[in-house]
Amino acid sequence: MEDFIAYNPTTLHFGKTALSSLAATLMEYGAKVLLVYGKGSVKKSGSYDKIMGFLKEAGLDVVEYSGIKSNPVIEDVDAAAETGRKNNVDVILAVGGGSVIDSSKIISVTIPVTHSGWDFFTGKAKAVTAIPLVTVLTVAATGSEMNPFAVITNHQTNLKTSYGSSLTFPRHSFLDPSLTLTVPRDYTAYGIADLIAHAFEAWFGIGETTLTDRFVLAIAQEAMQYGPELLHDLHNYKLREKIMFAATMALNGMTMYGRKAGDWGVHDAGHVLSLLYDIPHGASLTIVYPAWMRLFKDRISERIAGLGSGLFGKTLSAEESIDRIEEFFHTLGCPTRLSEINIPGDPREKIYQAMVQCKVNGANMKFLEGDYYRLIDLFL
Amino acid sequence: MEDFIAYNPTTLHFGKTALSSLAATLMEYGAKVLLVYGKGSVKKSGSYDKIMGFLKEAGLDVVEYSGIKSNPVIEDVDAAAETGRKNNVDVILAVGGGSVIDSSKIISVTIPVTHSGWDFFTGKAKAVTAIPLVTVLTVAATGSEMNPFAVITNHQTNLKTSYGSSLTFPRHSFLDPSLTLTVPRDYTAYGIADLIAHAFEAWFGIGETTLTDRFVLAIAQEAMQYGPELLHDLHNYKLREKIMFAATMALNGMTMYGRKAGDWGVHDAGHVLSLLYDIPHGASLTIVYPAWMRLFKDRISERIAGLGSGLFGKTLSAEESIDRIEEFFHTLGCPTRLSEINIPGDPREKIYQAMVQCKVNGANMKFLEGDYYRLIDLFL
Repeated sequence: MEDFIAYNPTTLHFGKTALSSLAATLMEYGAKVLLVYGKGSVKKSGSYDKIMGFLKEAGLDVVEYSGIKSNPVIEDVDAAAETGRKNNVDVILAVGGGSVIDSSKIISVTIPVTHSGWDFFTGKAKAVTAIPLVTVLTVAATGSEMNPFAVITNHQTNLKTSYGSSLTFPRHSFLDPSLTLTVPRDYTAYGIADLIAHAFEAWFGIGETTLTDRFVLAIAQEAMQYGPELLHDLHNYKLREKIMFAATMALNGMTMYGRKAGDWGVHDAGHVLSLLYDIPHGASLTIVYPAWMRLFKDRISERIAGLGSGLFGKTLSAEESIDRIEEFFHTLGCPTRLSEINIPGDPREKIYQAMVQCKVNGANMKFLEGDYYRLIDLFL
Repeated sequence: MEDFIAYNPTTLHFGKTALSSLAATLMEYGAKVLLVYGKGSVKKSGSYDKIMGFLKEAGLDVVEYSGIKSNPVIEDVDAAAETGRKNNVDVILAVGGGSVIDSSKIISVTIPVTHSGWDFFTGKAKAVTAIPLVTVLTVAATGSEMNPFAVITNHQTNLKTSYGSSLTFPRHSFLDPSLTLTVPRDYTAYGIADLIAHAFEAWFGIGETTLTDRFVLAIAQEAMQYGPELLHDLHNYKLREKIMFAATMALNGMTMYGRKAGDWGVHDAGHVLSLLYDIPHGASLTIVYPAWMRLFKDRISERIAGLGSGLFGKTLSAEESIDRIEEFFHTLGCPTRLSEINIPGDPREKIYQAMVQCKVNGANMKFLEGDYYRLIDLFL
């Protein structure tokens, strides 16, 4: 094991009664709330009305910022921070999935300052204080609800990158699986793929740690057992519950105990695809993961075989493991090749250039000369 | 799953470099430290000198309270609180195992008041403030380093009972597995048994939760795989590391996600044996667990079979599962019958009376008429 520090101050309220304490929790921080959400799915699903009902009943004063995009951009973060600053809000309530929660983390540290939130990503500024952040999760996928990390895109510099500090943990996150019952089939599948990819990034990270490896397998197995069932029964509360819980556990820190770092090379490459083609995050990961494992197959064959054997409960070679995992992503209805998505022209050179610009790399598995092109050819 | 709240504010510093930040962490709370430890094993092992070195170097002012017993008593808690109060300490540093850490939790809420710490256990008083508690763990077993619970004995009322609130979490816990290298074989085995029993108490608790069940199996399997190896190689750092990490995970809350409660009936009965005969906590659990499972075999046969099948990786009946688990406890060198311990006279009636007085029961598996005697006969 690698020496590590475990710290996670987020209070998680999980279950169908969770939201009953939302308003009282917000009021601990004050009466003026900045409500942040996306492009309207929370209104269609009824989550917005349900939550506003609780807030109004408690007499909270709500200012709204809506329209956060699914690959969230810094312009929205800065504009929302401006709204929060002008209205002198006491607390931020993020209602949505990873994009909304990630944006709200950066909004929370940008409200108290006068510069763009992007300065935290470039290292030009360091957060020293934050407006308290409370979240209500409406899509199971990201894990953002119980960690400090935010991934934001800056189209001006063509970068999609991440930031997090001890200040950017949500103080409280409310997870009511019934709010996810209306998530459509494709985004439900991307969420399942995303959480599995998070578990894999930990597995392929730096540091041997047998118990944490068991946790990683537990989370991925849970998603692989119940994910396909859920896709055939989207309104099943008990299955939504299992996937929502697994998604949170996949990225709340526990898969990293005893490791120096996760790998995150696949996420890095996936971010490039999302940036260039606005591919949903989960789909970008299922495109890159099989290719990434094939690229590194000879360098970490035992580790790949260990993952496949652990997941499927029988001894598999690295090659068999990759095939089985790719096949599983297909059963979710997720793409595992870029060609399954309608992309104009020959994307090879464009992706290569973006990978160079974004300095795509893993913490553990470093890309060598020629690997970018090899990876692209493996997922085209 | 049952609705649940997950909250654990303890910062865990794990590994061979962990102690390097101990003094700086204490100084965040002030310069006056109440150092609490047991009956001298930390001096024999060298842990005391190592830690005092760090504290002295940082110029911290240390007041000591030593002599905490292995089944800790309220008299020590009150006397230590008196020492802390008189010396106006800023922070408590507990160095030891579960007994020392449990005692220190109650000391931390007793220093600010004038009554006995026992009043928290009886419900006569409610803690409203606490002196910050930092721990250095020297025995892997209890999990107390990352949870709010304390079990204390009161010989005047012949009760051994537990207390915990959000105030009694350690702020920071330092876990350096090298401090456990000198723990003797028997106490190492009791620690392994204890952590496995904690996992089992969660397994037999209230609430179906598939992912959490996988976590429980992961923790117990880890201990059952590496525990016996450690007993043959007591100075192996990597094995100490695995057991120390597993013990913390077994009782930091994660085995309870999605449950209303653990069962804790075995712990309840085990406490009676410790109280009457000063049997080490871990040994009391290995005596009671097989008997408890046999007592409830017909009522929860599927659940027992599920545990055994999960642990041993093949389909086992409830009966086979119990036999295999009892056999495993024996491979650790732990007793599974009271007769393996030198007890004067016929203990049957004495244990029965103590069980009645302590109202031994589980949260999930309730003892029915005649069950106390049946249980005693099964473990005698």
